[in-house]
Amino acid sequence: MTIAHLARVFAGSALHHSENRIIVRGWVFRLRSLASTTFIVVRDCTGEIQCVMATARFRQQQLKLDDAVELTGRIRIEPRARSGCEMDIDDLRVLNPASHKLPFNASSRLDAVGPEARIEYRPLACRNHEVGDIFRIQAAVLKCFRAYLEAQHFQEIITSKIVAAGTEGGSNLFAIKYFERTAYLAQSPQFYKEHGVAAFERVFETGHVYRAEPHASSRHLTEYYSLDLEFGFTDGPEDVIELERQLLTYIFEELNRNFGKVLGRYRSTSLPSMLKVPVWDFHECLERLARAHGTSHLEDDLDPEAERQLCALAGAETGVPAVFVLGFPAANRPFYSAPRGESGAAQSFDLLLQGLEITTGGQRLHERATLESALRTRGMDPTAFEDHLRMFELGMPPHGGLAIGLERLTAQILGLPNVREAVLYPRDRYRLSP
Amino acid sequence: MTIAHLARVFAGSALHHSENRIIVRGWVFRLRSLASTTFIVVRDCTGEIQCVMATARFRQQQLKLDDAVELTGRIRIEPRARSGCEMDIDDLRVLNPASHKLPFNASSRLDAVGPEARIEYRPLACRNHEVGDIFRIQAAVLKCFRAYLEAQHFQEIITSKIVAAGTEGGSNLFAIKYFERTAYLAQSPQFYKEHGVAAFERVFETGHVYRAEPHASSRHLTEYYSLDLEFGFTDGPEDVIELERQLLTYIFEELNRNFGKVLGRYRSTSLPSMLKVPVWDFHECLERLARAHGTSHLEDDLDPEAERQLCALAGAETGVPAVFVLGFPAANRPFYSAPRGESGAAQSFDLLLQGLEITTGGQRLHERATLESALRTRGMDPTAFEDHLRMFELGMPPHGGLAIGLERLTAQILGLPNVREAVLYPRDRYRLSP
Repeated sequence: MTIAHLARVFAGSALHHSENRIIVRGWVFRLRSLASTTFIVVRDCTGEIQCVMATARFRQQQLKLDDAVELTGRIRIEPRARSGCEMDIDDLRVLNPASHKLPFNASSRLDAVGPEARIEYRPLACRNHEVGDIFRIQAAVLKCFRAYLEAQHFQEIITSKIVAAGTEGGSNLFAIKYFERTAYLAQSPQFYKEHGVAAFERVFETGHVYRAEPHASSRHLTEYYSLDLEFGFTDGPEDVIELERQLLTYIFEELNRNFGKVLGRYRSTSLPSMLKVPVWDFHECLERLARAHGTSHLEDDLDPEAERQLCALAGAETGVPAVFVLGFPAANRPFYSAPRGESGAAQSFDLLLQGLEITTGGQRLHERATLESALRTRGMDPTAFEDHLRMFELGMPPHGGLAIGLERLTAQILGLPNVREAVLYPRDRYRLSP
Repeated sequence: MTIAHLARVFAGSALHHSENRIIVRGWVFRLRSLASTTFIVVRDCTGEIQCVMATARFRQQQLKLDDAVELTGRIRIEPRARSGCEMDIDDLRVLNPASHKLPFNASSRLDAVGPEARIEYRPLACRNHEVGDIFRIQAAVLKCFRAYLEAQHFQEIITSKIVAAGTEGGSNLFAIKYFERTAYLAQSPQFYKEHGVAAFERVFETGHVYRAEPHASSRHLTEYYSLDLEFGFTDGPEDVIELERQLLTYIFEELNRNFGKVLGRYRSTSLPSMLKVPVWDFHECLERLARAHGTSHLEDDLDPEAERQLCALAGAETGVPAVFVLGFPAANRPFYSAPRGESGAAQSFDLLLQGLEITTGGQRLHERATLESALRTRGMDPTAFEDHLRMFELGMPPHGGLAIGLERLTAQILGLPNVREAVLYPRDRYRLSP
């Protein structure tokens, strides 16, 4: 029977209530029944508490792992317990039992649980620290991204994900039946964040973007979460690169400080400072790859193997397996990329981290006339972009920006082999549920 | 000519550079040319600075409002200037001119600018404080929402907006052509946030949701930004209501503290404490409306007029024009609503603020068996919800939550007549761009 006048106390605060009777609510995380005494570890959103009752009494309760329970009892200081205290149970109530047929429990070792089961039983997998911590780290990355940029005078914006046309000319778009018309899911907030520069000078947005990627790979999703920023009055892509160095260094320092123990389960070293991550020109990268690995098949882009090799080369030189590659051939970058010199390169960069591209960014064209001519050069019709081009008549400053894939960044921070492990509910060509 | 070794200084920091030569970049916000001297107020993302040059020299520059400019000059303490200093201009460079044919300028009074022009020229309207501050306030609301919940042990989650079926049975859904299948845009993260409770106990999500609302009104959008939260181990909807009282009070206090002057332009009083906002039962509301206004046509829901009248009645009683209406007839609430007593009411509430519903929330069903029977009662087939129902076998605790429409909340905070004014790029049946 519940004692109505007692308030629920979080497991993480129980120690402050020693000698008092309190109510704890949570999940049965561990159960250990000895001859005379049974130990029940209950977990809630703040931590765990070990609760104790006579085994004879426990046998009547039919309690099992992952049941949602409410326990009433007295808190006793117990230095041997992890939380410094234990509860002597007076009363135990099952609020909602777990099924008898779960494929695993929240306290199971998940090594033997396949990736499919982890996704099919997402909530249970997340109740386990091994999976749950991925999303705690991810939320912390997101929080630090926002906090750093706010401190740098960036304004958070929210822009529409339903658009009349794609930003980059129409491929890989998901079509929506929008009343009597066809609309599309936004591939990127690129145009809107550039408009945001004309409005607020410095803007960021965190939100979903959509790519109708027909091929499933360990690095592609059809719906991913993009950390976007764009800012005005820049001198070139180096300003954007320097901002990203500072931003990632801040995020990594905060993670090291607040999640050091968790990170230690995923990686052997703490997260590095990114301040010295070098910038290599695209052609310099090709030369380095040719020298080190005899690579000769690359012309206007990198491939996954080259990305891994470049990170290894950078790691050998600087101690940090990361490199900014700047000056990709313009033909392979979007029409709004500013040119870099006269040789057909773009002021466009990627950041490669531990073998994976986690960012694309660059300096953009900021004049209507050059944008129109860039569109025409690619055989695209400027009149189709009139709503966008008009925004360049409002005193659009020179500007640049970048987009970081949150799932990829999370995966690289934690060394996850597949970006799907860093999404609660991944979407790809074949997966629409759960 | 730019002096390359000088760094750009933000307008808001110029005072710290008195007697130094600096570079300022921003937009020409005001221009005042007297016989001998011309004053150019330049604005950037941190503030404004008044810059001075000889009119004879200025005439050669062809400068105009909203041009993006770079000014080099020396900072001089000037107590009469708003920022406490002025710049004596050595050098002026137009980085990108604004068009000669703008319908208004960033410094124009926007009273005469219609709502369509404000949206067609969004960046320029946002460069004006009157519109820009709406989005600065909105970003602050978002930041406070997240900060308050994190302090209360809520975990931020990101869930998919591409779903195989609707959460509430299929009406008002936008269909997506998803490779060989049809998918839908999520109407709400409801199912996922309930799964999040089974994973993390307390979760929140901020993100877009989609409703194919065929009718345009001052309160409906097809795409809006939902502030969602859900938490476990609740005793009833009163726990959710109390959390919202605390949450909104925190947000409002922060806005009063940090945006007092801005709020003063939009409303005559500061934002109120919400701690004493009353809870009125749905039937009590009908009785009050009948007594005060002779209302007799309402049966199972409120209408906009009733919402306005209830807020006025609450305002007269408590001083705050807001009321939680609890116990709506279950027939009008989603299948997952917990029942309130035996009379067909649901543990479901709305928060009405200044005449508008800004929140829907409640206690949910948490047992698979009762969910199945609720579905059957409504003629819905539980097998279609199997992916969802299975999550209730993992030890799902009793839980509740709410969703706040960010645009509506922003509109009510600022007294905006149409929710579209609180969206950068509104979407409705007829509007897909910009």
